[in-house]
Amino acid sequence: MSWIVLHFIGIISYSATGAFVALEARFSFIGVYALGFITAFGGGLIRNLIIGVPATELWEHSAIFTVFITLTIIILIPLKWIDHWRRWGLFFDSIGLASFALQGAMLASEAFSNDLGLMILAALFTGVGGGLIRDTIAGRKPLALKEEIHAILTILCAIPIWFGWSSPLELTLIVLIVIAIRMSAIHYKWRLPLPCH
Amino acid sequence: MSWIVLHFIGIISYSATGAFVALEARFSFIGVYALGFITAFGGGLIRNLIIGVPATELWEHSAIFTVFITLTIIILIPLKWIDHWRRWGLFFDSIGLASFALQGAMLASEAFSNDLGLMILAALFTGVGGGLIRDTIAGRKPLALKEEIHAILTILCAIPIWFGWSSPLELTLIVLIVIAIRMSAIHYKWRLPLPCH
Amino acid sequence: MSWIVLHFIGIISYSATGAFVALEARFSFIGVYALGFITAFGGGLIRNLIIGVPATELWEHSAIFTVFITLTIIILIPLKWIDHWRRWGLFFDSIGLASFALQGAMLASEAFSNDLGLMILAALFTGVGGGLIRDTIAGRKPLALKEEIHAILTILCAIPIWFGWSSPLELTLIVLIVIAIRMSAIHYKWRLPLPCH
Repeated sequence: MSWIVLHFIGIISYSATGAFVALEARFSFIGVYALGFITAFGGGLIRNLIIGVPATELWEHSAIFTVFITLTIIILIPLKWIDHWRRWGLFFDSIGLASFALQGAMLASEAFSNDLGLMILAALFTGVGGGLIRDTIAGRKPLALKEEIHAILTILCAIPIWFGWSSPLELTLIVLIVIAIRMSAIHYKWRLPLPCH
Repeated sequence: MSWIVLHFIGIISYSATGAFVALEARFSFIGVYALGFITAFGGGLIRNLIIGVPATELWEHSAIFTVFITLTIIILIPLKWIDHWRRWGLFFDSIGLASFALQGAMLASEAFSNDLGLMILAALFTGVGGGLIRDTIAGRKPLALKEEIHAILTILCAIPIWFGWSSPLELTLIVLIVIAIRMSAIHYKWRLPLPCH
Repeated sequence: MSWIVLHFIGIISYSATGAFVALEARFSFIGVYALGFITAFGGGLIRNLIIGVPATELWEHSAIFTVFITLTIIILIPLKWIDHWRRWGLFFDSIGLASFALQGAMLASEAFSNDLGLMILAALFTGVGGGLIRDTIAGRKPLALKEEIHAILTILCAIPIWFGWSSPLELTLIVLIVIAIRMSAIHYKWRLPLPCH
C-alpha cells in the first residue's frame, strides 16, 4: 500500500466527516459541500499559514476532484447506506488522522530544519485543524478538544519523522500503529483525565 | 451604473448585515464595528489566503472609510429607522453577493489562468465567507450553509467570468440576473432539498 | 520594568485565559493546550495575515516554551490554587492587552508607514483576536464584543504609537495607563451603551 493511497483515503475520510456533520446540523446540500471541503483542506490551510508555505500548493486537481466526487456521492445515496458506511468511518478516519499528521510533520521538518516543537504544532493542526473548524462552524464542541486521543496520536506521528523516518514502508507502519492505538482506545474506552481537576 | 458603484454597494450591504447580527446578539458598539468589518472583509481575506494573494491588497482607504461611516451611522440612528432599511436589505445584499463573487472569480482567473474549479471556490468563499465568519462568531447557524441560494448564485457568477465576460456592461448584467433570481427565490420560496434525505 | 518582561507577562496571561476557558468548557488536557496556544498566538496570527507579514516570525522558541510551561503548570496544580490566581487574572490580562495592542500598532506602523487606520485595526485584532477565536471555539459569546473596554483600550494604545512613542519608558507608561483605566472600569462598572438602542 503506497503513501499516495493513504493520502487519498485520508482526504476522502475527512471530507466525509464534514458531510456527516453538515447532514446532522440540517444544512442544505451546499453546507455538505462547504463543510466537506473545509474539513478536507482546513487543516492543511492552517498548517501552511503557520509554517509560511503558500496555500496555493494545496490545490491539486486530483485532490479537489476526489473531494467533490465523495461529497456528491454522499448527497445522492440514501441515508441508510451511509449508516452502513459509518461503521467503517472511525477506521478510515484514523488513516486520515495519521496521513494528515505525517504530512504536516514532514512539511514542517523541511521548512524549519527538523525543529521538533514546530513539527508537533504542524502535525497537530494538520491532523485536527479541519475538524476543529468543521465543529466550530456547525456549533458543536470540537471533538478534538474533548477527547485527548486525536491530539496524542498527531504528536506520536511527529516524533518518528523527527528521527528521520521517511520511506513509504516506515510511514505505512506509523499509520498501522495509529489505527491500532485508536481502535484499542475506542474499544477499551481509554481516557486520560486531568490530574487534580 | 459602473462597476465601482456596485462594489461599494456590496461593501456597504455586507458591513450592514454584520452590524445587524451584532445588534441582535446584543454585542456592544465595538461588536458592531468588529462584526461589520469582519463581514465586509472576511470573505476577501479567506479568498486571498486561498489563491495566494497578499491580504494587504484588500486595504484601500476608501473601502475602510466607507465601512467605518456605514457602521457609525447604524450605531447612531434609532432602531426603527433601521427596520425600515431592512426591507431593502435583501436587495442590497444580493448586489453584495454578486459583486463579491464576481471579484473572487476574476481574481482567481488571473491567479490561476482561468481554472474553473478554483474560480468557483474563490467566488464561493468571497461571496459567503464574510457571512460565514460573522454567523460563527455570533453563535448562529451560518445562513449560507442552511440556504442553498447564496452558494448557487456565487457559482453562477463564476461561470460567465470563465467564459471571458469582463466589461462593466456584462458584469452589471450578471448582477441584475443574480438580483432577479434571489428575489424570485425569496418570493416564491424556492428550495432545493437533498435527494433521499 | 523592561518591555520584554511586559511581553512575556502578556503571553503568559493570554495563554492562561485560554486554559481557564478550556477547563470551564470541560475540554480534555489537549483542549487546554490547544486553546492556550490559540489564545496566545491567534491574535498575532490574524494581525500578521492582515498586515502581510509571514506568520513564521511569531515562532520564537522562548515564547512557545513559556506558553507550554504555563499550560503544563495549570494542568498539574489543583483547581483551588487556580482560583487564587484568578483574582490577579484581570490585572495580568490588562498587561497582556496593552502589550499585544502596542506590538500590533508598532508592526503595522512599520509595514504601512504610520497609517493610523491600519494601526488601529492591527492593534485591535492583536489585542482581542486571540480571545475572539478562543471564545468562538468554546461556543461562548466573545467577551471582547460584549464589553467595549477591551477594544477602546487597544485603540488607545495605537494613538501614542502613531505620535511616535517608542522608548521602553513611554511604552511602560501606556501599559500603566491601560491597567489603571481597565481596573477603574471594572471597579466603577463603567459602561458605554449604544445610543438610541
